[in-house]
Amino acid sequence: MIDWFSKKSCLAMAGVMVVGAALVPGISAAAAPTPAELAIGYRQALYTVLDGNFEYLGGVVKGRVPFKSDEVVKRAERLAYLATMIGDAFPEVSKSGHTDAKPEIWTHRAEFDKKVLALVTESAALVTELKKDSSNSAAFKKAFGAVGQACKSCHDDYKKE
Amino acid sequence: MIDWFSKKSCLAMAGVMVVGAALVPGISAAAAPTPAELAIGYRQALYTVLDGNFEYLGGVVKGRVPFKSDEVVKRAERLAYLATMIGDAFPEVSKSGHTDAKPEIWTHRAEFDKKVLALVTESAALVTELKKDSSNSAAFKKAFGAVGQACKSCHDDYKKE
Repeated sequence: MIDWFSKKSCLAMAGVMVVGAALVPGISAAAAPTPAELAIGYRQALYTVLDGNFEYLGGVVKGRVPFKSDEVVKRAERLAYLATMIGDAFPEVSKSGHTDAKPEIWTHRAEFDKKVLALVTESAALVTELKKDSSNSAAFKKAFGAVGQACKSCHDDYKKE
Repeated sequence: MIDWFSKKSCLAMAGVMVVGAALVPGISAAAAPTPAELAIGYRQALYTVLDGNFEYLGGVVKGRVPFKSDEVVKRAERLAYLATMIGDAFPEVSKSGHTDAKPEIWTHRAEFDKKVLALVTESAALVTELKKDSSNSAAFKKAFGAVGQACKSCHDDYKKE
């Protein structure tokens, strides 16, 4: 991961700098993104995508968005899949920089990983519940609440205010 | 989607504005993100996550990143899954704003959707190939090349320079 980010950033920025120098003489190109910046950018993008689907479901649960079973199942499946991508979005290289991730993630990695696993488990349970009964049921709302709790539990300990 | 983005942005920005006013008197809060901005931000995040996994595989194919079969299969599976999320990341509301998406996407939607489907198909074929033979084979490289071609074909027609 680190090697790849590092090499990608060098290659990408070499291209940017050549194009930049050709098109805008006199204006120096921005510094190449560091491996940490690339890894943090990737992680923040992953959370943006996760959040987009989570908030959709939250809107449904709160009655702001109409319940459509196909759409709700699709969003829940996405949460369950994206949750499995969180763990390796926290490589060691990404612990310093402009990030809301607390350094305790890396000093208490096993505990952090347990909290991530709870999100994987709860979002998979939400999908299971919806496949059993894809209606706007109390069980759906409860299962979604458990997903939200898994998010919050990790944020409480490992996300900066 | 539009309703949800709109409502979410209002609620989120109401919070931001209250906090902002309390903490930084005299400095006005930024304008609330529009539904278009929220949808474009979501889409760009999705492509950042896709690209992170695509470039990892590209590094493997080019020999810059060591071939590890578990990792390669995982990245290919992510591409195949994320590709299925592209279609609805282009809602009508997101056609204007700071985006590299050409307006032709929405005037030639069926053709655009075909190109997106080609990426879904080729990335699924890459996973199938790797499950048949998860070694650093010529067939893996060829299947990955077809994924890259599917990306390029769509970018050529529908992404601004």
